[in-house]
Amino acid sequence: MTIAITAFERSPDGGKGLARDTRVRWALEETGQPYEVHLVSFAEMKERRHLALHPFGQIPTYEEGDLALFETGAIVLHIAEQRAGLLPEVRNARARAITWMFAALNTVEPPILDLQTAIIAEGGRPWSHERLPLVMDRIRARLHQLSARLGDADWLDDAFSAGDLLMVSVLLRLRTSGILAEFPNLTAYVARGEARPAYQRAFAAQLAMNAPSAG
Amino acid sequence: MTIAITAFERSPDGGKGLARDTRVRWALEETGQPYEVHLVSFAEMKERRHLALHPFGQIPTYEEGDLALFETGAIVLHIAEQRAGLLPEVRNARARAITWMFAALNTVEPPILDLQTAIIAEGGRPWSHERLPLVMDRIRARLHQLSARLGDADWLDDAFSAGDLLMVSVLLRLRTSGILAEFPNLTAYVARGEARPAYQRAFAAQLAMNAPSAG
Repeated sequence: MTIAITAFERSPDGGKGLARDTRVRWALEETGQPYEVHLVSFAEMKERRHLALHPFGQIPTYEEGDLALFETGAIVLHIAEQRAGLLPEVRNARARAITWMFAALNTVEPPILDLQTAIIAEGGRPWSHERLPLVMDRIRARLHQLSARLGDADWLDDAFSAGDLLMVSVLLRLRTSGILAEFPNLTAYVARGEARPAYQRAFAAQLAMNAPSAG
Repeated sequence: MTIAITAFERSPDGGKGLARDTRVRWALEETGQPYEVHLVSFAEMKERRHLALHPFGQIPTYEEGDLALFETGAIVLHIAEQRAGLLPEVRNARARAITWMFAALNTVEPPILDLQTAIIAEGGRPWSHERLPLVMDRIRARLHQLSARLGDADWLDDAFSAGDLLMVSVLLRLRTSGILAEFPNLTAYVARGEARPAYQRAFAAQLAMNAPSAG
């Protein structure tokens, strides 16, 4: 059954791999599944046809036969449940891996997205300069806790899982901020994620569509 | 096997049911499972013993035999997978219900939590008054989309699911802001959730521990 996902016609990050389709591509590569990509423009994302797929007018979406999903976390979990490679088979280890998926998206990513909002949406506001350190310190508080838990382990809970896939993806957003570099074990953790052949293939596939020289 | 969760020794909301243990209590009530509650103080949440259960020093946690979980979304999903009542059995409907769980926590709740941060953590800052309308408009943008998708349906995807449990819980945070009242179908949706006997039991159980007259 053909799998089709949606991605930005042109990613705002110019191919750095931070758009959320990269997370879904990575999950599909880890589980060895081919997929099609349908590109949508910002205008198309707000049109009725796309809103039928994604009520919040975003990417990625996932279609497989008569199943249509949105929300990156749900899509990655669905992929992980269908094929081996992203979740342990043992019940308790599986539940813990899913816990890290939620932790990445609900506990670690929100303050990181606040930083993007502070810089992009509120960058020109009079409070921007004074408020930024507060936002960055909220990120640091989370990363201190994450760093303490990871310690010198390779992955968050024994073997690489969908939880690591999402956590690495979330932390990648921080590279240009310099905050990630304050945590050597998290920096090494992200590098381990990026070094995975499946990530490399996912990154290259999105880059081919988004790099300044493309299209 | 005994299920034990953690909750605030004294919830900051004084028993309004907005602390996240209410979501887990609700899921356990929907699936008919008894549970114990271990109360932790704010000081205890940051101590080594609790951090071993929850690396980010929060509540709730979930213990069942030798399984220990954190992250409300992951706990609710685990409960929903073990017993009937919160997820459809049909594969595609099940995947869509899980999509709404992630949508509640990753797409709808973050701007709502930003409002709490703006009011509580940044309420005394010089930019607070001027910035608040921006934060509220980001919430409205999401609620417009959610309201359009819900339409006049009772629940987000056919029967009540764990997706509705989390979405109703997230929207309940907005009641005192007045924003929820701008969306009559979402107001009615939240009221349907609150009217469920399982929610009523969960709410009463947390209220008994948190009401000003308790303890």
